[in-house]
Amino acid sequence: MGSVKTKRMPRAVRERQMLDAAVKTFGQRGYMAASMDEIAELAGVSKPLVYLYLNSKEDLFTACIRREAAALTEAVRSGVRPGLGADRQLWAGARAFFTHTAQNPDGWAILHLQARTHGEPFAAEVAAMREEIVAFVTQLIVVAAREAHRDPDLPEREVAGLAEALVGAAESLAAWANTTPGVSARQAAATLMNFAWAGLGNLMEGRPWSAPDADQVLSFDDRA
Amino acid sequence: MGSVKTKRMPRAVRERQMLDAAVKTFGQRGYMAASMDEIAELAGVSKPLVYLYLNSKEDLFTACIRREAAALTEAVRSGVRPGLGADRQLWAGARAFFTHTAQNPDGWAILHLQARTHGEPFAAEVAAMREEIVAFVTQLIVVAAREAHRDPDLPEREVAGLAEALVGAAESLAAWANTTPGVSARQAAATLMNFAWAGLGNLMEGRPWSAPDADQVLSFDDRA
Repeated sequence: MGSVKTKRMPRAVRERQMLDAAVKTFGQRGYMAASMDEIAELAGVSKPLVYLYLNSKEDLFTACIRREAAALTEAVRSGVRPGLGADRQLWAGARAFFTHTAQNPDGWAILHLQARTHGEPFAAEVAAMREEIVAFVTQLIVVAAREAHRDPDLPEREVAGLAEALVGAAESLAAWANTTPGVSARQAAATLMNFAWAGLGNLMEGRPWSAPDADQVLSFDDRA
Repeated sequence: MGSVKTKRMPRAVRERQMLDAAVKTFGQRGYMAASMDEIAELAGVSKPLVYLYLNSKEDLFTACIRREAAALTEAVRSGVRPGLGADRQLWAGARAFFTHTAQNPDGWAILHLQARTHGEPFAAEVAAMREEIVAFVTQLIVVAAREAHRDPDLPEREVAGLAEALVGAAESLAAWANTTPGVSARQAAATLMNFAWAGLGNLMEGRPWSAPDADQVLSFDDRA
């Protein structure tokens, strides 16, 4: 493959054009419905050239996931300033996240909707990216707990659950913002912070939500 | 089809067995990888009988989604006692939700992972279920705002965003609880309440998270 003649255009440029076309097509039509003909046409190249460069539809999809996952984590990472307090880091990370997903709706659709369900190796690529973001959020919660001198009171599993909840909330808000006219990245980030941080802030101050115990109305699922 | 001879077993019972087998197979192997042979074998019937009853793999999958979506919304709905305060209603709904997803991991995998990405009509079935749950949560937030006499301060769009965030957090926690040994439905529900309600409670009391304005560190994404 190294000896392919690409006329005037460098291989890297052509490959980027193919990936751009593939992200758009997979993101808008889904992995199954997207055709290599469509992708080649949108990229302005022949279908054999797409196969020559990216090998197969599966490899092309994997390359899309990898590129979009790397771009998203890089956007979040470079958005955060480690010196700030935990809530400001989260605000900065949230704004970077929603700005990126708003600017790359097709890439986000691939990561959020397409890649998780078509089995390995696709799901593993996205799981790795999601784990990196969950780890980042977990770290912020640990830092916040430390800032509030609450380390001993937040067990590791509770922190892990809170991080999963926060990432799930962000994913849901990104999909909502991308399909609701007029919701800006900043608004989505502010809603996440209102929802998440005001709650986490309470937790850090030792004011968790208190479950009503011995409440017979709730006994229906105590059998679980 | 009405004249099919089903030996001793009533049609409804056989159909339920087929759907049980299909939910398990689709949930564990995914829509594409699941085979009708496998489903028929697991149900203990012949493959032609599955086609005779459910028509096609697509129709079978649709029937699975419809059944699992109805069961989940019914579980949440019957878990809630309308007379309670908003936070207790949410706690009851959350426990019912996590109890159901823990007891039906394959059904949850179909709704959460499989159905959303294989195009219409599957995605529409799940979207309708999700909208019903979002509407339920939206209503609870509106009630909570009313209880706290905060109606004028929570614009409709903000309420919609908060409901999306809460449902996304619950979805993420359900997937996490189902794949993390030792996390009970009650723990998942408590984490959601800690995360969500402590935050919502703050909001209702007029204590939103406050964004640092004029913060130059954040200016990197003001271009968005």
